[in-house]
Amino acid sequence: MNDHEAASELATVTRPAGPRVPVVGMVGAGQLARMTAQAAVGLGIGFRVLAGAPDESAAQVCAGTELGDYRSLDDLLAFGSACDIVTFDHEHVPGPHLGALERAGLKVRPGPDALRFAQDKSAMRERLAGLGIACPRYALVGGLDDVTAFAAGSGWPVVLKAVSGGYDGKGVWVCQTPGEAAAVLAHGIDLMVEEHVAFERELAVLVARSPAGQGAAYPVVQTVQRDGICREVLAPAPGLAAATAVAAERLGLAIAAGIGVTGLLAVELFETRSGLLVNELAMRPHNSGHWTIEGARTSQFEQHLRAVLDLPLGAPVLAARHAVMVNILGGDDPDLYSRLVHVMAADPGVKVHLYGKQVRPGRKVGHVTALGDDVDDLRDRAARAANYLRYGTEEGGG
Amino acid sequence: MNDHEAASELATVTRPAGPRVPVVGMVGAGQLARMTAQAAVGLGIGFRVLAGAPDESAAQVCAGTELGDYRSLDDLLAFGSACDIVTFDHEHVPGPHLGALERAGLKVRPGPDALRFAQDKSAMRERLAGLGIACPRYALVGGLDDVTAFAAGSGWPVVLKAVSGGYDGKGVWVCQTPGEAAAVLAHGIDLMVEEHVAFERELAVLVARSPAGQGAAYPVVQTVQRDGICREVLAPAPGLAAATAVAAERLGLAIAAGIGVTGLLAVELFETRSGLLVNELAMRPHNSGHWTIEGARTSQFEQHLRAVLDLPLGAPVLAARHAVMVNILGGDDPDLYSRLVHVMAADPGVKVHLYGKQVRPGRKVGHVTALGDDVDDLRDRAARAANYLRYGTEEGGG
Repeated sequence: MNDHEAASELATVTRPAGPRVPVVGMVGAGQLARMTAQAAVGLGIGFRVLAGAPDESAAQVCAGTELGDYRSLDDLLAFGSACDIVTFDHEHVPGPHLGALERAGLKVRPGPDALRFAQDKSAMRERLAGLGIACPRYALVGGLDDVTAFAAGSGWPVVLKAVSGGYDGKGVWVCQTPGEAAAVLAHGIDLMVEEHVAFERELAVLVARSPAGQGAAYPVVQTVQRDGICREVLAPAPGLAAATAVAAERLGLAIAAGIGVTGLLAVELFETRSGLLVNELAMRPHNSGHWTIEGARTSQFEQHLRAVLDLPLGAPVLAARHAVMVNILGGDDPDLYSRLVHVMAADPGVKVHLYGKQVRPGRKVGHVTALGDDVDDLRDRAARAANYLRYGTEEGGG
Repeated sequence: MNDHEAASELATVTRPAGPRVPVVGMVGAGQLARMTAQAAVGLGIGFRVLAGAPDESAAQVCAGTELGDYRSLDDLLAFGSACDIVTFDHEHVPGPHLGALERAGLKVRPGPDALRFAQDKSAMRERLAGLGIACPRYALVGGLDDVTAFAAGSGWPVVLKAVSGGYDGKGVWVCQTPGEAAAVLAHGIDLMVEEHVAFERELAVLVARSPAGQGAAYPVVQTVQRDGICREVLAPAPGLAAATAVAAERLGLAIAAGIGVTGLLAVELFETRSGLLVNELAMRPHNSGHWTIEGARTSQFEQHLRAVLDLPLGAPVLAARHAVMVNILGGDDPDLYSRLVHVMAADPGVKVHLYGKQVRPGRKVGHVTALGDDVDDLRDRAARAANYLRYGTEEGGG
């Protein structure tokens, strides 16, 4: 291109890139929005995020960042007015605001009627029971008597859960005694009590559903949690019986259709000797699906966009025999980047994703994905990389 | 996360994401910068582009967009002052400006001494000859006599090339007669004449080299050009003799080391009955490497960033048995998005990348990648998708 050609190039590119290119707005600017922004680039659509501050994870990278408060209806309406579709990187937008956005003519996906089941665990349990889907036994808690009465049937320990607002182990307490339960009740938040399930392992199934009703399920994964935080995801779940895999995928699709999800639905499951129990739901890209960026033909972030745009869904099939994802948690030393050099030198084949977040001990600040044929080798490699980024040693500490 | 937790989250994230996170600035905001921006997200580095206009391909998506003119030293210096490393999505920054950026203390990668071989084809030919690397026979052209004298040795047709400023078939003319050559000379630009090589096919090898001297070569690909524009890339090049593949990779690494490239080097090659000839060089992510986004363990865009940052290079190995990339050229109807729906419905497994560029007939506006085991099937699927996006029919027209 010579100078004259460059000048004419600039002169003729003066209007938006094309007719009828939709704009998706995502409320929230954490790492899920950041990785969704990456996927939006390839689709050639418009993409905006509503961020609370300019240094939030997605705001650092996304040209279409607007600052505002997701708890403010005015901010949500202003943000939505520049978007064709509004979606979310978290479940914390107040339900009445979601309804108001819809009444203002915005396409809210997932819609308020579905999202409330991700916002309110007791509504979710009740709805799933109505769909005939097995969940842990539970009861609403008005006071300590409700907990001890429940435990008289289920035995101790019991699990107390915040009815709304929990995530990443926050809002979940395993209580061994009435005294421990009383301490949780003292927080003064709405609680429910659940049986402490003696599961074999935890699984997750991630499905997408479009407004047109198309559904797609990713292969069922095993998740490994520690202290209530997802540490590792194995895709597909090693040694999972084919019938169980099919049952889990059907379960995910049935829930998505049953509660009218548009976009992604992540279903966290307990695998028990007597079958699958649904633990949690999330209606957005999910930590259990980060492996799909490299490990599936269509990443969960692209799939969420396709679903909320009512585009045909992408193939959710594996792109390798196995994918292992390990979360990078923050350590004491905030200098992730200098340790990245060593991780890259030690293993040129692992894929590190950093979220641009300030490092705080235990905070999710990135993840590592390894793909290949030998799942034990992949777990080892991904864990070494994540441990080094956290601790400066491959051995890890917790 | 409840409201109180959200508030404390916002209050504590007030400084940049971490210490010592470098900022890479890319001059130019076309699709190469756009896809590099995507890769930068995962690395957690800072990334900025210098765009001529806010609607350029990368400027649409990259939070770190600065407007300016790459032909203005003031604009380049202002842009560079906010970056640790300056790199490029095209070869058109004037050489003296590159030197001035270096003298101002900026890390310019690739540096001026290497970049001039991508800017000046006669300097490139001379340097490669000095390295003992086979190229087509060529001569500088002062007037028509030089062309006819050259053709007396090589025969007609001959190829006239602009010494600088050409790309995508622009600046290259195949001349059958002295009359055709005279018409090209009438443009009044610096020209060289080359033999018209009777090649078997065109290949390309993409290598990366870091300032520390580490090198990595991607598998050699076959490129299919029409009207001087790359239309299709097959990775790896089907049926390529192992010895030829090794020779091409060594050639790429030898040129990168020989001329001191930092970042990516794409070497376009002619495969002939008597061996490989070097046709063109580019020192940036290259159309022949777009398949690496899904088709290699490390994408060329991430690899370029790793190289210019002097990070250890990523594994350049294939992530599938075959990858096929087909460029999407603009057609008469600018409404790419409405045709995207049909492409996604027809084939959920192909990967479409749109660049957000205004559609003009023949302009590169995106690409399609297909991965799998059967190269003929992949070529068919990728071509159908690209044709539909251009013409609204799978059959294509040219």
